[in-house]
Amino acid sequence: MAPVSTSDITSRLAGLSIQSEKKVVEHVAAKSPKEWRDALEGKAEGDLVLTKTLLFKPKTAKTAVPTPVLVIAKEDTETSAAAIGKLLNLKELRMASEDLMKDVMPGVETKDDLTPLLLPTPLAPTLHILIDETLISSPTPAAFRVASGTTSVFLTGQEIKTYLESLQDKQTNEAEGTLTNAQIRVVDFTAIKKDEVSEKPAGASASKEAKEAVAAKKKEGKKEDAYEMAVAYTKEGDFPGWYSDVLIKGDMLDYYDVSGCYILKPWSYSVWQAIQNWFDAEIKNLGVDDCYFPMFVSSARLEREKDHIEGFAPEVAWVTRAGSKDLDEPIAIRPTSETVMYPYYAKWIRSHRDLPLKLNQWNSVVRWEFKNPQPFLRTREFLWQEGHTAFLTEEEAGKEVRQILDLYRRVYEDLLAVPVIPGVKSEKEKFAGGYYTTTVEGYIPTTGRGIQGATSHCLGQNFSKMFDITVEDPRNPGQKTHVWQNSWGLSTRSIGVMVMIHGDDQGLVMPPRVAHVQVVVVPVGLTAKLSEEERKSIYDHCEKVAADLKAVGIRTKADLREGYTPGWKFNDWELRGVPVRLEVGPRDIAAGEVKAIRRHDNHKSQLSMSDLTKAMPKFLDEIHDAMFAKAKKSFDEHLYKIDKWEQVVPALDSKNVLILPWCEAEECEDDIKDRSAKQSTEGQVVDEKAPSAGAKSLCIPFDQDRFGKLEPGTKCIGCGNEAKRWTMFGRSY
Amino acid sequence: MAPVSTSDITSRLAGLSIQSEKKVVEHVAAKSPKEWRDALEGKAEGDLVLTKTLLFKPKTAKTAVPTPVLVIAKEDTETSAAAIGKLLNLKELRMASEDLMKDVMPGVETKDDLTPLLLPTPLAPTLHILIDETLISSPTPAAFRVASGTTSVFLTGQEIKTYLESLQDKQTNEAEGTLTNAQIRVVDFTAIKKDEVSEKPAGASASKEAKEAVAAKKKEGKKEDAYEMAVAYTKEGDFPGWYSDVLIKGDMLDYYDVSGCYILKPWSYSVWQAIQNWFDAEIKNLGVDDCYFPMFVSSARLEREKDHIEGFAPEVAWVTRAGSKDLDEPIAIRPTSETVMYPYYAKWIRSHRDLPLKLNQWNSVVRWEFKNPQPFLRTREFLWQEGHTAFLTEEEAGKEVRQILDLYRRVYEDLLAVPVIPGVKSEKEKFAGGYYTTTVEGYIPTTGRGIQGATSHCLGQNFSKMFDITVEDPRNPGQKTHVWQNSWGLSTRSIGVMVMIHGDDQGLVMPPRVAHVQVVVVPVGLTAKLSEEERKSIYDHCEKVAADLKAVGIRTKADLREGYTPGWKFNDWELRGVPVRLEVGPRDIAAGEVKAIRRHDNHKSQLSMSDLTKAMPKFLDEIHDAMFAKAKKSFDEHLYKIDKWEQVVPALDSKNVLILPWCEAEECEDDIKDRSAKQSTEGQVVDEKAPSAGAKSLCIPFDQDRFGKLEPGTKCIGCGNEAKRWTMFGRSY
Repeated sequence: MAPVSTSDITSRLAGLSIQSEKKVVEHVAAKSPKEWRDALEGKAEGDLVLTKTLLFKPKTAKTAVPTPVLVIAKEDTETSAAAIGKLLNLKELRMASEDLMKDVMPGVETKDDLTPLLLPTPLAPTLHILIDETLISSPTPAAFRVASGTTSVFLTGQEIKTYLESLQDKQTNEAEGTLTNAQIRVVDFTAIKKDEVSEKPAGASASKEAKEAVAAKKKEGKKEDAYEMAVAYTKEGDFPGWYSDVLIKGDMLDYYDVSGCYILKPWSYSVWQAIQNWFDAEIKNLGVDDCYFPMFVSSARLEREKDHIEGFAPEVAWVTRAGSKDLDEPIAIRPTSETVMYPYYAKWIRSHRDLPLKLNQWNSVVRWEFKNPQPFLRTREFLWQEGHTAFLTEEEAGKEVRQILDLYRRVYEDLLAVPVIPGVKSEKEKFAGGYYTTTVEGYIPTTGRGIQGATSHCLGQNFSKMFDITVEDPRNPGQKTHVWQNSWGLSTRSIGVMVMIHGDDQGLVMPPRVAHVQVVVVPVGLTAKLSEEERKSIYDHCEKVAADLKAVGIRTKADLREGYTPGWKFNDWELRGVPVRLEVGPRDIAAGEVKAIRRHDNHKSQLSMSDLTKAMPKFLDEIHDAMFAKAKKSFDEHLYKIDKWEQVVPALDSKNVLILPWCEAEECEDDIKDRSAKQSTEGQVVDEKAPSAGAKSLCIPFDQDRFGKLEPGTKCIGCGNEAKRWTMFGRSY
Repeated sequence: MAPVSTSDITSRLAGLSIQSEKKVVEHVAAKSPKEWRDALEGKAEGDLVLTKTLLFKPKTAKTAVPTPVLVIAKEDTETSAAAIGKLLNLKELRMASEDLMKDVMPGVETKDDLTPLLLPTPLAPTLHILIDETLISSPTPAAFRVASGTTSVFLTGQEIKTYLESLQDKQTNEAEGTLTNAQIRVVDFTAIKKDEVSEKPAGASASKEAKEAVAAKKKEGKKEDAYEMAVAYTKEGDFPGWYSDVLIKGDMLDYYDVSGCYILKPWSYSVWQAIQNWFDAEIKNLGVDDCYFPMFVSSARLEREKDHIEGFAPEVAWVTRAGSKDLDEPIAIRPTSETVMYPYYAKWIRSHRDLPLKLNQWNSVVRWEFKNPQPFLRTREFLWQEGHTAFLTEEEAGKEVRQILDLYRRVYEDLLAVPVIPGVKSEKEKFAGGYYTTTVEGYIPTTGRGIQGATSHCLGQNFSKMFDITVEDPRNPGQKTHVWQNSWGLSTRSIGVMVMIHGDDQGLVMPPRVAHVQVVVVPVGLTAKLSEEERKSIYDHCEKVAADLKAVGIRTKADLREGYTPGWKFNDWELRGVPVRLEVGPRDIAAGEVKAIRRHDNHKSQLSMSDLTKAMPKFLDEIHDAMFAKAKKSFDEHLYKIDKWEQVVPALDSKNVLILPWCEAEECEDDIKDRSAKQSTEGQVVDEKAPSAGAKSLCIPFDQDRFGKLEPGTKCIGCGNEAKRWTMFGRSY
């Protein structure tokens, strides 16, 4: 086929009543987008919009006819091959070879020459053409290359679409119902990119492939042959990619069209509810009452205490308008509730008889961070509880700080199977405006970073002095005394920590006590030779097993979906991390048994059907314990006690958190952070994706004894002054 | 004492280095503020700010020295006598008599002549002087009258304060610790007005007075002799006053410094949690999962469906700024979540196998109403649940609509003891954009108005067509079908309805199943002649009774507060509406009994201590049933079935809701509303506070039979066309 020439193009355009004279621009040769942009500088009528033309090819059998995909998009539109493949139901889309390019577009030599204008007529019926929706919806003509890199044509998206439609074979195209021509589709690439990651497979046939893909996982980032259903990244190879993929495919969340906000789907929200139910009952036992303060704060209130608010101010979201009316005063959305609540504490606390006052709220707060958002760990709106309590004495306040901290430890350890180390924060790391901060600190083995789990602050009398919260002191009649206050919070961040610690290359691994579904029952052995009766018996057994377990309070689901193979179902539930899969087949039924597969270690066993309801709670507890033990072992093995500076950076680089003899001076902490950061990035080649930040103090563990006696006279590892306590340092989130 | 003259004033001012020349203005005689404002028009340097001077006197024994209170405030500052009395701990502040005015300010004849400038020197030591904080903080000079109504002086708040301080008797004032001079205080009247209503009594001595006050309640608005602890209004006399007073004093909520927002204190939030716990378990049984969508909506999403959003647009709060940066696009706070959620439904629902999709969220939504806010009933942020479900067929959707509606009925009837009538809304009253709306309608006897309890909407396919939520129809392979959707919501409004229906002149009356405290145990008979041992025995018994009841799941509190009389405690818990008070005294202990007093009807009985834990659940159920029966009786008696137009307005005026034979045409509904509104206000004298609006349709009850057979040919009461069904009309909230 003869290549299309520039004059062919102009005459085609003229035939479509597209005035081409003004649109064709000659310029200096330009290969790269940058050169092209420079060459066209000043030649566009309005804003200069460049386009790109890409040719993809899916994986097909060698003998099959290729079904290439031509993508026409604005230069800056992200056109994800994975998403396009998903959209068109084509596997493993790759950039086309030059040979295929020449087939599709005669006369083209390299990918830089690709342009829709050079497509021959009639268009090949096997060709998919996708046009960027943002081109179609924009009235601004965009630049398309012609050939040779010295000619461009300015056309709107609609015009290029008309142009391409004119190349189709009209006759066959009109033959009703027969797909005999290229498919031209307008595509919102942003939308399909988002869709791609959460779409479920269309059918059930993918099971084997998915299994193979998972089995074939490699110790590198993107899994080569991963089917979309499976997690596309390995945890070790590309942790951030793995993390977001596992959340989406495990059905925990979905992206949202306001940046930094995520949809918590039932699979994650139920974890939060499990935490809520447990924690709320515990704090009610301590005499804490729940309440709800408005999400709005007047600017006067918010800004009343400058020092405290300073840290939050850059992240405060402001409502300035209601309907079409500007508000007289902007109103803030709470970033935390100290300044919201304490003016009322001043009002409500009239006498020492009103103490202790212990309130908690379950709400969401907004911190409009401009850093990269990360699901659960850094989001602009997040769910949490915030407790705010007031006492007469320091002693009472201090006691509660530790009681709450221990509840946080139990949320992590007893519910989420995540080991944490309780301790106190350094002066530098404590809550701004507080007296001291206690914390439970976790550890993410994959990155070797510490992560703050939850904090319980003693605010001392700092806020009660700000807000004038006083009572007459019963110990000193006639004397006013400022109350002692605490605040404490636990957020949905805990869910992210849980996922990071337990998840694996197959997907989520849910700790049983918070799993939305603890046990899934899947019918197996459904071969074609089974009678309808036998088949029904298997289904009935599955339903009965599920019903029996539910009756004893175990969250169980019988997966009786038609049209999916058992293997597909196995994958589906593995991806979602259901702790126990029970398989019920003809042989199991005959033996009065079920086969139980544990998600976290893939261990298989036969359980007796008759005492399943008794055995299962214990079985789940064992899973919890094993998951916790595994995570604890990993944490313990990476708690690295050292006393020489030279060991610090190598230990960090080996994904350890450090136990250091430390002087507790703030300047020393700054210095440790700076020096360790500098040394990590200077003298050595560092993996691009590895955390490069310096070490900061994570906490001073309450349990000092586990690290052995700190001999008097031991020197601080940072500054050489006398060390005070063992302190945990590390890279952190 | 000789009256102060204008020249005295100017010389005093000069003595204080306050330049009076420019400040003294002569004008035409002006009595009223309006005349005064006109007289000063154009004479102020900047904005014209008028002041007022008020003189109050508390109730004191005839023989006591009066302690008058002089208030100096901006003309438009609300200066509540009750709040001032509270602030100064003075009882029953009233406007001073003219005699007292002349005593305090010689030369003054009427209240219009009052001015701080005419105070004699030295100031009387018994005089309280309160200066409006907004005067003090403003740099703008405000106008003060001098005398005779033809002279004004412009002074700032600081200047008037300096002036008044100069009038004090320096010598005695400096005698340390002795209060021998007038007290000059700067007061934030807005703040004390808010404080006033929620402050607790300072001590316990008020019990008897409070009791008397309550006992002496009259069938008029403000109770004459009400002590601050008790509800200050009667329910029948001033319902709005009663409502907000009972909420504040019953400790359900507090006002907040962002208008239209309220603090839900534990006493009300716990009711919401009780509703949540029950309802959440019920919908989970129906297969509904909880989730959480972000509170923010992009403007593109929100405005995508113009028709639906039209009703909400004027009330949408917009975030336009984060920190100090303007956002590129304003972001809305959700007023409801249809347009937030349904784009994702379109994405998640790929196949009929994904149906039904049933999600619910517990969240808060924001509707920035500019009408008068009312706690629980109309607030700018409110808590609710919103369920959003999708089904393959109309039948399934319709079934769920009614299941949910019945759960709403049970929330009202079984938890809140509030009778409701389930039915369907007229076309005019249905949810905008929906297919049909079902509702449970309540009735507030005091105002005779209907009130919508909760709504369960079938959205039909309207939203699925907007958002393109389709599946391949398994009944018609190859055909796409739009899903059928429902949405349903119940909000904290329910708490307001509960309060309005059950509360009485003594305060809240809490239905036992949602009461934060169901039983309070109060020690009685603690006379002076008791030994310490006997005293301890009573306290121990109280604690044991409470512990035993708690152990069987009854929310019980032993009120062992020291320093409060039993009577004071009785009042306190009555105000908060605790369903059962148990009194434990020496005689009760001797008899092995406790005295039980039911809050709702004040019925007293002796209960055996030994089987209290068995008897109490039944006792509480009986209370629930009795409260429900009473409210039901009231509703039933005011469900007035009529068939002649002439009966409509008189029936409404007698606080009925009407059962009318109706044609169900929208024009007819408009006409009924207009005509009934017009007739209520035209021909007769109407109580100023009575609802004057016309009747609108509340619902078409599902249970038509209870109103008897609607004979074929029965005419619509509005237009005379054929009536279709009995329909409930009424004035409403």
